Amino acid sequence: MKLINGGVCAAKGFVANGIHCGIRKNKTKRDLAMIMSECPASAAAVYTTNLVKGAPLLVTKAHLANGVAQAVICNSGNANTCNANGIEVAEQMSALVAKELGISANDVVVASTGVIGQPLNLEPIANGIPVLAKGLSANGGEAAAEGIMTTDTVKKEVAVSFEIGGKTCTLGGIAKGSGMIHPNMATMLVFITTDVAISPAMLQKALSTDITNTFNMVSVDGDTSTNDMVTVLANGMAGNDEITEENEDFAIFMKALNTVTVALCRMIAGDGEGATKLLECKVTGAKDVPTAKTVAKSVICSSLLKAAMFGADANWGRVLCAIGYSGADVDVNAVDVSFRSAKGEIIVCKNGAGVEFSEEIAKEILLEKEIEILISLGKGEGSATAWGCDLTYDYVKINGDYRT
Amino acid sequence: MKLINGGVCAAKGFVANGIHCGIRKNKTKRDLAMIMSECPASAAAVYTTNLVKGAPLLVTKAHLANGVAQAVICNSGNANTCNANGIEVAEQMSALVAKELGISANDVVVASTGVIGQPLNLEPIANGIPVLAKGLSANGGEAAAEGIMTTDTVKKEVAVSFEIGGKTCTLGGIAKGSGMIHPNMATMLVFITTDVAISPAMLQKALSTDITNTFNMVSVDGDTSTNDMVTVLANGMAGNDEITEENEDFAIFMKALNTVTVALCRMIAGDGEGATKLLECKVTGAKDVPTAKTVAKSVICSSLLKAAMFGADANWGRVLCAIGYSGADVDVNAVDVSFRSAKGEIIVCKNGAGVEFSEEIAKEILLEKEIEILISLGKGEGSATAWGCDLTYDYVKINGDYRT
Repeated sequence: MKLINGGVCAAKGFVANGIHCGIRKNKTKRDLAMIMSECPASAAAVYTTNLVKGAPLLVTKAHLANGVAQAVICNSGNANTCNANGIEVAEQMSALVAKELGISANDVVVASTGVIGQPLNLEPIANGIPVLAKGLSANGGEAAAEGIMTTDTVKKEVAVSFEIGGKTCTLGGIAKGSGMIHPNMATMLVFITTDVAISPAMLQKALSTDITNTFNMVSVDGDTSTNDMVTVLANGMAGNDEITEENEDFAIFMKALNTVTVALCRMIAGDGEGATKLLECKVTGAKDVPTAKTVAKSVICSSLLKAAMFGADANWGRVLCAIGYSGADVDVNAVDVSFRSAKGEIIVCKNGAGVEFSEEIAKEILLEKEIEILISLGKGEGSATAWGCDLTYDYVKINGDYRT
Repeated sequence: MKLINGGVCAAKGFVANGIHCGIRKNKTKRDLAMIMSECPASAAAVYTTNLVKGAPLLVTKAHLANGVAQAVICNSGNANTCNANGIEVAEQMSALVAKELGISANDVVVASTGVIGQPLNLEPIANGIPVLAKGLSANGGEAAAEGIMTTDTVKKEVAVSFEIGGKTCTLGGIAKGSGMIHPNMATMLVFITTDVAISPAMLQKALSTDITNTFNMVSVDGDTSTNDMVTVLANGMAGNDEITEENEDFAIFMKALNTVTVALCRMIAGDGEGATKLLECKVTGAKDVPTAKTVAKSVICSSLLKAAMFGADANWGRVLCAIGYSGADVDVNAVDVSFRSAKGEIIVCKNGAGVEFSEEIAKEILLEKEIEILISLGKGEGSATAWGCDLTYDYVKINGDYRT
């Protein structure tokens, strides 16, 4: 499993591009992205659990019913959600892409991210699609990664290469936003491409399994967006024997997928709106995995703990408090807590009660950019990791006046 | 039902006091409060659902097992939670009060609020209790209300007078903090006193019923404290026939209790940490009350909506989003939303889609200090109200460095 460059264009047969077409006011910001596979690809996706769903998700879901897709179109700056004509606009986006690329509209994944409840003007998109298509290239992954950003401060892309049955395979992805179960309203979108040959059913199985330990364990602010979506396109151009069952090849594919998704989770959480720190909560010793997940997510979602981490304050009582109200079956008298970063590790709580520790050393550890909150529940073998970020002035600033 | 002054000393036979004894560093802040009834009173209480419970709650719960209490002791500045000797300290606080007042230690309600996981030094409390007791008076309600404050910016007290069976009755309360199901870590504590004659069982029934529509519908930041507690003492000195069943007198008592608890809920939410606005989410047209409650709480808890309210931004898409992820059974295409304040009301969403509205008028409405978010679900008769506040820079500031 080797990290390589190229993001969503790293795998064989994928090209991409991103441009400014005019949806976002700031002309220096790209707002339209396209990804294309040379040939039809196995396709899988997972969608937001929010009852309010963006129109593009409904259209994409219909298009992917047959497990095949060949292109992705995504705009930022407007979510095309809660609009009376949303479905129509998303279908028109697909049709325009299909016409331009000479493929079926049913093979287009369509996505939108931005403000909810404002009509999406098709005109700049219609004008932009031919420009986008013309500029598609194997070097366009970065432009595509930029085209899907909204309040993101950095583009998010990663790729790995690995071997299946003697064939060199590649899997890469781009992401925007901040979560899946608890994503930033600005939406989480992830597009993953691979040249592995894998059936649509097995691709969906791999994705649906992986997200329970990755994107569903990310939280920035507890708000589940209406437009979250993760899609994978697998075009088979690596030439491996098609994966059609849970064999050794599938296990390798799962590992490659997980390497990419965990990297994207860390990028998403670390770039949460206003964030100055990535928080990684690692729970061990739970009676089972669901218990560990519940505890990890509760801790990572605590506004009070997030604010304390912003202040580099080792206020471990807030960790205990979040464990206590998580709803998980936990013996609070068996809980140990420590904080860890590149500067070292410090134990702050043993068996549910405070231990003496140096506030100076704790501060030094917590001033780092990546903080691990380590929780041992002392009751079993269940473990889980959740990713989040600190709560800062800038979060309030960004969201206090997002639309203007 | 008439609003009167006097707070926790408004009812006959109650005296109170609050002093600075030395737990809090700032000598201008009172940190120890006492309330006493002239005679033993029926007592009822509800406690945090957090698995991590403050030692004082465990001691109080044991003391109230017989449904009788006569005095309350409460310190601020330290939660006496997650301390190895916490139970012992809480018992000693009760014993010192009992000795000083000449009552049974079993009739003392003990409470603490402040930082978790730091040993509570008994010495200043032991020195303070005789001073407190000496100063008990019918004018001491305000000092007691101040003695239980932590990050509160205003003291919270209210009282009503009413008639039961021709007797003038009074019920009053003081509160600190910011919530019950989702309270501020700084803890919500509410002490209510009344001269109504009511059995402990009916008092508990009244309280347990009332909080489901009041304190359990308040949220400041989604964190459920380890030390939340609401207690009521009813000493019977109004001389009414004791309430021992669900009759008309009980209904009047419930109404008096609800008047006081709703007023305290509004004070608590409006004084949420860093808050500049009180948010009141009123849901109607739900298929049933639990659905209405789920929706109201989800909206009031949305960090994104809270930040938008801080910015006076009519970003109603965030309301729809929070309804959608609430888990409630809702037809999102039947949802109407409007914002209302002293400046008027503006409809922003009909049947799940945006309607054109004046951003200027919306801004004017949202710049007020008390904002109602009105949601109609269009499916039945269920309704509910939840109280919260906006998310501000000051929330981050207060909680980024709470311990220092």
